[in-house]
Amino acid sequence: MKLSVGDYLLGRLAELGVRHLFGVPGDYNLWFLEQAERSDRLSFVGCCNELNAAYAADGAARLAGISAMATTYGVGELGAIGGVAGAYAEHVPVVCVVGTPPLHAVEGRALLHHTLADGDFSNMLACYRAFTVAQARIEPANARQEIDRVLRQCWLHKRPVYLQLPSDVAALMIEAPAGPLDLEAGSDPDQIRLAVARIAARLAKARAPAILLDADVGRFGLGELVLKLAEARAIPFATLTTAKGVVDEGHELHLGTYGGAGSRPATRSAIEEADCLLCIGVRFTDMATGLFTHQLRPEAQIHLRAFDAAIGMEHFAGVTAREVLAALPPALPVRSRRPLPASLVAPLAAREPAPVEPGRPLSQLRFWQRMQDFIRPRDVVLADNGTSTGGTMGLRLPAQVSFIMQPIWAAIGYALPALLGTLLAAPKRRQLLFIGDGAFQMTAQELSTILRHGLKPIIFLINNDGYTIERLIYGANSSYNDINPWRYAQAASFFDTQDRALSLSVQSEDELERALALASEASSLVLIELVMDRMDAPGALTQLARKAAEFDFPQLTRTAELDTTKAGPARDLPAKDLPAKDLPTKDLADPVG
Amino acid sequence: MKLSVGDYLLGRLAELGVRHLFGVPGDYNLWFLEQAERSDRLSFVGCCNELNAAYAADGAARLAGISAMATTYGVGELGAIGGVAGAYAEHVPVVCVVGTPPLHAVEGRALLHHTLADGDFSNMLACYRAFTVAQARIEPANARQEIDRVLRQCWLHKRPVYLQLPSDVAALMIEAPAGPLDLEAGSDPDQIRLAVARIAARLAKARAPAILLDADVGRFGLGELVLKLAEARAIPFATLTTAKGVVDEGHELHLGTYGGAGSRPATRSAIEEADCLLCIGVRFTDMATGLFTHQLRPEAQIHLRAFDAAIGMEHFAGVTAREVLAALPPALPVRSRRPLPASLVAPLAAREPAPVEPGRPLSQLRFWQRMQDFIRPRDVVLADNGTSTGGTMGLRLPAQVSFIMQPIWAAIGYALPALLGTLLAAPKRRQLLFIGDGAFQMTAQELSTILRHGLKPIIFLINNDGYTIERLIYGANSSYNDINPWRYAQAASFFDTQDRALSLSVQSEDELERALALASEASSLVLIELVMDRMDAPGALTQLARKAAEFDFPQLTRTAELDTTKAGPARDLPAKDLPAKDLPTKDLADPVG
Repeated sequence: MKLSVGDYLLGRLAELGVRHLFGVPGDYNLWFLEQAERSDRLSFVGCCNELNAAYAADGAARLAGISAMATTYGVGELGAIGGVAGAYAEHVPVVCVVGTPPLHAVEGRALLHHTLADGDFSNMLACYRAFTVAQARIEPANARQEIDRVLRQCWLHKRPVYLQLPSDVAALMIEAPAGPLDLEAGSDPDQIRLAVARIAARLAKARAPAILLDADVGRFGLGELVLKLAEARAIPFATLTTAKGVVDEGHELHLGTYGGAGSRPATRSAIEEADCLLCIGVRFTDMATGLFTHQLRPEAQIHLRAFDAAIGMEHFAGVTAREVLAALPPALPVRSRRPLPASLVAPLAAREPAPVEPGRPLSQLRFWQRMQDFIRPRDVVLADNGTSTGGTMGLRLPAQVSFIMQPIWAAIGYALPALLGTLLAAPKRRQLLFIGDGAFQMTAQELSTILRHGLKPIIFLINNDGYTIERLIYGANSSYNDINPWRYAQAASFFDTQDRALSLSVQSEDELERALALASEASSLVLIELVMDRMDAPGALTQLARKAAEFDFPQLTRTAELDTTKAGPARDLPAKDLPAKDLPTKDLADPVG
Repeated sequence: MKLSVGDYLLGRLAELGVRHLFGVPGDYNLWFLEQAERSDRLSFVGCCNELNAAYAADGAARLAGISAMATTYGVGELGAIGGVAGAYAEHVPVVCVVGTPPLHAVEGRALLHHTLADGDFSNMLACYRAFTVAQARIEPANARQEIDRVLRQCWLHKRPVYLQLPSDVAALMIEAPAGPLDLEAGSDPDQIRLAVARIAARLAKARAPAILLDADVGRFGLGELVLKLAEARAIPFATLTTAKGVVDEGHELHLGTYGGAGSRPATRSAIEEADCLLCIGVRFTDMATGLFTHQLRPEAQIHLRAFDAAIGMEHFAGVTAREVLAALPPALPVRSRRPLPASLVAPLAAREPAPVEPGRPLSQLRFWQRMQDFIRPRDVVLADNGTSTGGTMGLRLPAQVSFIMQPIWAAIGYALPALLGTLLAAPKRRQLLFIGDGAFQMTAQELSTILRHGLKPIIFLINNDGYTIERLIYGANSSYNDINPWRYAQAASFFDTQDRALSLSVQSEDELERALALASEASSLVLIELVMDRMDAPGALTQLARKAAEFDFPQLTRTAELDTTKAGPARDLPAKDLPAKDLPTKDLADPVG
């Protein structure tokens, strides 16, 4: 069958489940967008700018399994690259299609707009190489093969890929293959037999085994297999901070969140004292480990990753986590399924919140306690970085909640455009966004696109007068952590002319109650501005911020040891900077309780 | 003298004339921002996001001669990279300071947030290498030397540079040198003597010499030297489209704008038929040449660039344009200064505009005619890409107007944040911004920072319901060129709570008159929304867009030759896509007249 290159690419994307192509038009991609416009299998979703498009694609991929975006060359793709790098860091599969100048100009090294005007057409791909697992410039002779190769890598690795589509190539006709994309990546039979046997033997003889989960469990869809394994031997499991919500937090074997020294003591000891710790997709990042405060026995660890496994110094390439996990339960002696000892069970929920006090100013502690009851099973919950992640980390999520944050790349402003993506990917689910004012200002205009599509999330905008997360680390009262306040409650009426939103501003506990009641009944987008104190923060976040300050600025903690008469101006800093009063700190895994 | 590394860097920046450090805080740069906060020589200007900060720095550098920005590692700097690439393409000197993780973490390859969590700390610098002329990671042993080396390159080349400042290095004390930065880059004495002699000989014997100017004339401050040379021999000069406004457009030797086939015929023949064409800083980009429609005699061209010269196949390295230009007039036989023949003189201004017709809808043609009178000498005028550049290109700028656009990188959304930079760089000058609705949506939030600092530009926001520049190229009625309308006239009251603006919405000629009268008397920021037809555009822009379509999609123009029964879906496109009616086209150099 003859198809144009653009239509072939769109067909392959649709075959993978892509329903939305996020992006911004530019002259080099207009023909491809026209092809998308005529497609009945996916639709183009225009975003206000390219960074937002990348975040939206990231959000969509986290729920839909994969997503795609389209920008123009140079100026467009470089606008998006930070968002794509985030998807790469966080293992999110996004297909980036960049409309480039026509092949005749590339080959002629023409000095073009949207380029550096130096005839170099290799630099953009070179940059993207650092943030994608596969790249290609599509040319007439390689179109079918390169499209298939690159899309396959995206699907398999759950990480972004990059395709340059020259403006004149999009319309060229090629012979399309009849069969579907080959998406299999099976294990080597000998290697998997050996790996399963080794891991099963270790688990079978362990007296105190445990499983530690990271975000790849969610990305690679391994949650059910993990639960089956855990249940087969009654092995308790914890989720790293970076993996919150990848499995049901109410499961009887769930130990709660593990994040190094800040963890609940029972969780911490179960993980750190395990004599066989099966780590699935685990990366010991600063954010996963409470800034490297984890203390795990090296000899206890088994690492199972998407495409390999490691047991001590023994390494198995050519095995997939999916097949190993599927093969393990039958290889293990069944142990009766039994609940965890009470001491290990993660607290089911916050203790009963105290009654609402009319007029009492809203605090972070009380707000998040309230959210524990407000979030419902099957909600999609997004949290931007800062007090929003700090607060949601302390919640015990109801069953089947999809929880989306960006703990590693940690770009503030990520979550609002990501919400556009998650809403389009799961339009029937209730979706909640928690975002701070500083983050909101980064990418605020994408609220416009959410409204334009008639989507109806509930947005909690925490207005605490600036970058509180930075204030907690350094410069509590310094002006660089201030922002210019906006009339946040007018956002929906400014960014859209159709009055498709309910907007509320809340300062006290009783106002919050009224707002939540209205939000629950609303049939439109709801935006609730929550005015809170600038130095109020979930305790776990305050603790983490202090550790980050020690890590980033070791001088801070050592300056006191020096003779102060010798100190130059820079060395005066710490005294000024400490928060005015010591804030109460809370247990990382349970700041609510 | 002992100084901290951060204070040393800030001191060097101030020495170069940097007064503002644009950026966004992040944990890795907080200490450096604290040092900036305590500096009395420059101040930090917090922006809503990093791309906007880069654009603001670009704008500031175009007026102040150099500027600087500060972001955090990874997530921050990648947000800005598109703006920095623009500065690189357009030859704008911006110093990018990136606060990175502390050296101990870099050397320990720690898996950190804001990175790809793979222990690689080389990838960001590698990306920036493509878009900056010098780069360094500042370490204790190299701090002084690397800071000086990199800043010197920025100053000399008028292009961005990149400095990584690890969070823990900013506070370390180093011995600072007593002397100022060495910013000299003199010519080789023999080479410059030869180059000047060759060029002088060519000019002296030329019967029809001409000078062609590109943007570097402005960047390198060569305008006065160029005028002296032109006057010494009564040599007429034209400015490329990309260089509009680099010299006084009212000068008696000014031929007007040259942009290839679209140029005014008299300008075109004077440049294309010159027997000695001195090209200063010229790059024959698509945007400078009306998409490569220039027809210049190869043997007539002499190229003088910032640091070299070329006469035919003879190349002179080690000569600076500044020194060559300064040496040329005394080397030439003086010719009496005389005005150009009337046929060559660029039209002084638009013909008298027709009287205002009350209730007549605003058109692009009439609006730009009106702007010809509204713009005053010494104004700073910024135009975003699209109809705004299309319209301003047709104006004859009054004396000493600084005209700022981004013709090569051509990022829509550039000009609003750039305005923040130009306003801070020249707070006493009246500043006008022309920007379309699609561009405004890209970076709208930076209006907040402009208001926050009490700045008072006049902003003309052309609301023509989407990406008109793209519609002109392709997809006039396709949905991907649509945007969601906003309540633009409420922008200032949404993005700021202090009511520091006068906002107006204008649909007709008499409303425009009233708005301009109010704007002229206002003592605040003025935002005027101009509602115009979506397919209305300056004629020169329409012409250029057609040429761009032919260039990007050669199929478009050839499809008609094919048997239509063979055409697949992609080949149906052109018929549908042509604009409903033929728009009037105007002369590139004079769409107003």
